[in-house]
Amino acid sequence: MAINRTATPLVDAPRGLAGVVVTETEVGDVRGREGFYHYRQYSAVDLARTRGFEDVWHLLVHGTLPDTERRAAFLAETSRLRRVPAEVRAALPAIAAACRVSGPLAGLRTALSLLGAARGLRPVYDIDPDRRRSDTLAVCAVVPTLLTALHRLGQGLEPVEPREDLPYAANYLYMLTGSEPDPRRVRAVEQYLISTIDHGFNASTFTARVIASTGADVAACLTGAVGALSGPLHGGAPSRALDTLDAIGTPERIDSWIRERVLAGDRIMGFGHAVYRTEDPRSRMLRETALAFGGPRVEFAVEVERRVEAILAELKPGRELHTNVEFYAGVVMELCGLPREMFTPTFAAARVVGWSANILEQATDPKIIRPLARYVGPEPRLSAPAPV
Amino acid sequence: MAINRTATPLVDAPRGLAGVVVTETEVGDVRGREGFYHYRQYSAVDLARTRGFEDVWHLLVHGTLPDTERRAAFLAETSRLRRVPAEVRAALPAIAAACRVSGPLAGLRTALSLLGAARGLRPVYDIDPDRRRSDTLAVCAVVPTLLTALHRLGQGLEPVEPREDLPYAANYLYMLTGSEPDPRRVRAVEQYLISTIDHGFNASTFTARVIASTGADVAACLTGAVGALSGPLHGGAPSRALDTLDAIGTPERIDSWIRERVLAGDRIMGFGHAVYRTEDPRSRMLRETALAFGGPRVEFAVEVERRVEAILAELKPGRELHTNVEFYAGVVMELCGLPREMFTPTFAAARVVGWSANILEQATDPKIIRPLARYVGPEPRLSAPAPV
Repeated sequence: MAINRTATPLVDAPRGLAGVVVTETEVGDVRGREGFYHYRQYSAVDLARTRGFEDVWHLLVHGTLPDTERRAAFLAETSRLRRVPAEVRAALPAIAAACRVSGPLAGLRTALSLLGAARGLRPVYDIDPDRRRSDTLAVCAVVPTLLTALHRLGQGLEPVEPREDLPYAANYLYMLTGSEPDPRRVRAVEQYLISTIDHGFNASTFTARVIASTGADVAACLTGAVGALSGPLHGGAPSRALDTLDAIGTPERIDSWIRERVLAGDRIMGFGHAVYRTEDPRSRMLRETALAFGGPRVEFAVEVERRVEAILAELKPGRELHTNVEFYAGVVMELCGLPREMFTPTFAAARVVGWSANILEQATDPKIIRPLARYVGPEPRLSAPAPV
Repeated sequence: MAINRTATPLVDAPRGLAGVVVTETEVGDVRGREGFYHYRQYSAVDLARTRGFEDVWHLLVHGTLPDTERRAAFLAETSRLRRVPAEVRAALPAIAAACRVSGPLAGLRTALSLLGAARGLRPVYDIDPDRRRSDTLAVCAVVPTLLTALHRLGQGLEPVEPREDLPYAANYLYMLTGSEPDPRRVRAVEQYLISTIDHGFNASTFTARVIASTGADVAACLTGAVGALSGPLHGGAPSRALDTLDAIGTPERIDSWIRERVLAGDRIMGFGHAVYRTEDPRSRMLRETALAFGGPRVEFAVEVERRVEAILAELKPGRELHTNVEFYAGVVMELCGLPREMFTPTFAAARVVGWSANILEQATDPKIIRPLARYVGPEPRLSAPAPV
């Protein structure tokens, strides 16, 4: 059979679509050579240093930073949405039980999907921009409630109901422990959350946009994005960097441990980034946060960072390997009392806002994302062999 | 701030990645100008005419058609996997309740996600190809059980336990109704299922592959794909074509109804396809299936098809608009007694196998799919305005 394809000219993309610009965006960008990333027109790290989570959330989904009045209204609007609908609440024990092995991201994926169903979310192309934005708020606001409820159920504890008087980060820590959180910890977690809301066009963000391009509802998009985030190549697992600290154990073991790993060609978790050629700006900010807490754990982390960079510079000159966001994120979350299995879920509790901004942007351009694959198998024949 | 991006040369892709070849595949292909599509090296329509669902499922995930012995072993292997784990079963009433408004695809999305969690599925990059394949079988085999259980729970009925002695299609109809299905209906549904297992690189297949490229587990990939399928631009909603038949109502109204729609520039559901420039080969096969059933509904559908094509040829010369798969798929599923809200879920019950084959293929190439977006917003500044 002669090959006679459609008339569209075919373009072979680089493997993994590396370097291929899929869309234009106003959400933000990462400038890897400058060690700089931004949300809308503001430095993300600067926002994390000077703003609360709600301010930056508002910036991402509305496009502007709120004034005092808008800030209060946005906090009131989103904090009212934190409760879990009854049908979802009813399923949480079963979800928590099912996730005992597979972990909290599988639980979040399931609970978000269920929440979207319970809210009766409509396809993004069938609703106006205000309704789409409300849909993203209704899902994002419940993420900390779902994460903490599933975590507590998994530990045999009752979920803690959300409080409407606390901002996002404080309410998250409150629901996790059931007690009034320490303001310094709240602020550290809030800075971490703000700094990880968005970070360029990573695979989970792209997944959310591909699903949004079909017109599917916001929960369908976010559920797919959580799935992509759960992949080991995605990144966003700050607990792995703490595992490095634990494996090294004591300061005098640093050099021998690192040299052994580097010479064996192993990757050292918490170091290196696909985009940054400089220090990761998130790492820089979170190091400051950790240093403000102080203590032997922080001193050890700083010493490990210093020695790893020196040894890598010696053994792999020109590679420019620095700590990535996971390294000090793990240290900071540990200082704030977050259990290790909640590190990546906490990352997800911030990233849902970035995914949402991307979904809202994608929904303004109703064109399905539908690339091609090139068939390279055996030449097809019209008739299959008769069954035997 | 000077723009100084990474060294990767950037390529602007066409909108929606149209015409961009993302990967090579041996799963299958669609030849739009020839009206031909195939799974591996066999004509898909020929497979639907001559084979059972398990044969084609085996072909997709193992790469070969089974002989008698392998067929029996594969049926035994997959039919043993049909039962729902207890934690998932416990959550189904809550899922069914949550999906009353949002529909069965949101239910399938949630239940698949939960099933993956309960099975403790591991990242595809952390397991060998045999284990990956087993994971896809474990999820696909349960899809009919989940769909029929959710449907029955939504109607206030108890779910029907799967039977291990029946093939996939027969067991599906059995669980839906609770009674021994008519063999002619089973075969018609089986042919429909086979014909929709895969169809090129559509948005849901691409979604599954993007998620798989991060190394996420099979359920994460399939959950995302179901989300993409639920988007109105994706297609795969055969009930819409029946809505067209219902709206026309009687043979004498055909001409005026069609002319009105075409002159108003409306799309006529069930006609036209993004890839086929000829008749859709699935439509041709399903028309035969419908004609074998016969009856006034089938005669009416054939008459509508004939008149629409004639009127479109007159009013839109050169457009080559023919019935697509949805048109006769709707007619056939109606003849087989499937409720209209189960048409798209039935499509999903076939397509999970195609998604699985694509996930397995993607997992052999551990490279994350991570394109870029071009920032086109206001030039960023380092410091955000002080809070007001």
